[in-house]
Amino acid sequence: MASSQEEVILLGVIGSPFLHRVQIALKLKGVEYKYLEDDLNNKSDLLLKYNPVYKMIPVFVHNEKPISESLVIVEYIDDTWKNNPILPDPYHRALARFWAKFIDDKCVAPAAKSVFIVDEKEKEKAKEELFEALNYLENELKGKFFGGDEFGFVDIAAVIIPIIQEIAGLQLFPSEKFPKLSKWSQDFYNHPLVNQVMPPKDQLFAYFKARAQSLAAKTKN
Amino acid sequence: MASSQEEVILLGVIGSPFLHRVQIALKLKGVEYKYLEDDLNNKSDLLLKYNPVYKMIPVFVHNEKPISESLVIVEYIDDTWKNNPILPDPYHRALARFWAKFIDDKCVAPAAKSVFIVDEKEKEKAKEELFEALNYLENELKGKFFGGDEFGFVDIAAVIIPIIQEIAGLQLFPSEKFPKLSKWSQDFYNHPLVNQVMPPKDQLFAYFKARAQSLAAKTKN
Repeated sequence: MASSQEEVILLGVIGSPFLHRVQIALKLKGVEYKYLEDDLNNKSDLLLKYNPVYKMIPVFVHNEKPISESLVIVEYIDDTWKNNPILPDPYHRALARFWAKFIDDKCVAPAAKSVFIVDEKEKEKAKEELFEALNYLENELKGKFFGGDEFGFVDIAAVIIPIIQEIAGLQLFPSEKFPKLSKWSQDFYNHPLVNQVMPPKDQLFAYFKARAQSLAAKTKN
Repeated sequence: MASSQEEVILLGVIGSPFLHRVQIALKLKGVEYKYLEDDLNNKSDLLLKYNPVYKMIPVFVHNEKPISESLVIVEYIDDTWKNNPILPDPYHRALARFWAKFIDDKCVAPAAKSVFIVDEKEKEKAKEELFEALNYLENELKGKFFGGDEFGFVDIAAVIIPIIQEIAGLQLFPSEKFPKLSKWSQDFYNHPLVNQVMPPKDQLFAYFKARAQSLAAKTKN
């Protein structure tokens, strides 16, 4: 395990699922850190310095060494603090990476669009895409969590799903259609380690509203 | 290290940069495998069985356990066969994952479009995007390879660049503009382990032409 003399800093914006992925991993490992809230409309010098490529949160800084991209950070945390492993043996680790990437590639964009797009036709198309992707996840869920009895890498990656559900309500994600995923979503969100990390609903909502407005403004320009 | 009693199968299509990533990793580790050429216009039952989500090559099958997605496969190979490490210590491993993801997210699509799109305006836009991304890689290249003195994960991920250069010629990728990347591209492609894996130019060209025609046909429908 890493020494207690070290400096761990996390830059984020409360409400961002990508930030909360990292916070859940740190909570699971019991790593103390200094949290710095950023402002996406007026990004801090630290954010621009530490993530010059994407200029996006979250950024994780361990003893002055910065790392970006939420899943890359979660893997780094698992590589560095060995207690409570997030990724299992090589084969199941490969499957976990496959499904985490699937969530980023196939669920994130249609989930965001399903909630925030105003055009009804586009919204419907995004919802169809999301349902198709969620169907794969529903079939993949074999135990209580994707990780088995305790949550792991895919659960952490999939935190976007209960967050979107929390904001959008159940119509986005009917439990008749996805019974296992709906139960997982509740179990994961209510897990003591996850629950301690998640902000209240109004803060989640405020983040998503601000991001949607910012994206809409960019599209108009 | 894994036992010599095992069965290692690789499904691919010669000319695919994603297949060649996996082949370079296997060559570096000295792993023997059975190669099965697939046909993207008439996909094999094995491909549909082993990668039901994307139905795409490459698929790696180790003792009947299938893994898809080229970078996930390369990590699995590195986790399973420990000689000649592809990924280094946790911090540099995180940086390598960051840049490999950057190549997939920011280089692959504009590189393909720069070569195959007919519309001049769109082609120019793709080229601009590609140059912006290559600029980051040019600045990131500190040694002979991204991995240092010997090649590693980012070099393997970036094999798409010399492949595209091989097909498109130098106009896509001028050495005055990207001197370090141009030298890397030659050094990596001519590395004995890489060179043994890469098919002749006409086979690369045939693959890309077929893919472009298939994509164009889909766009028209």
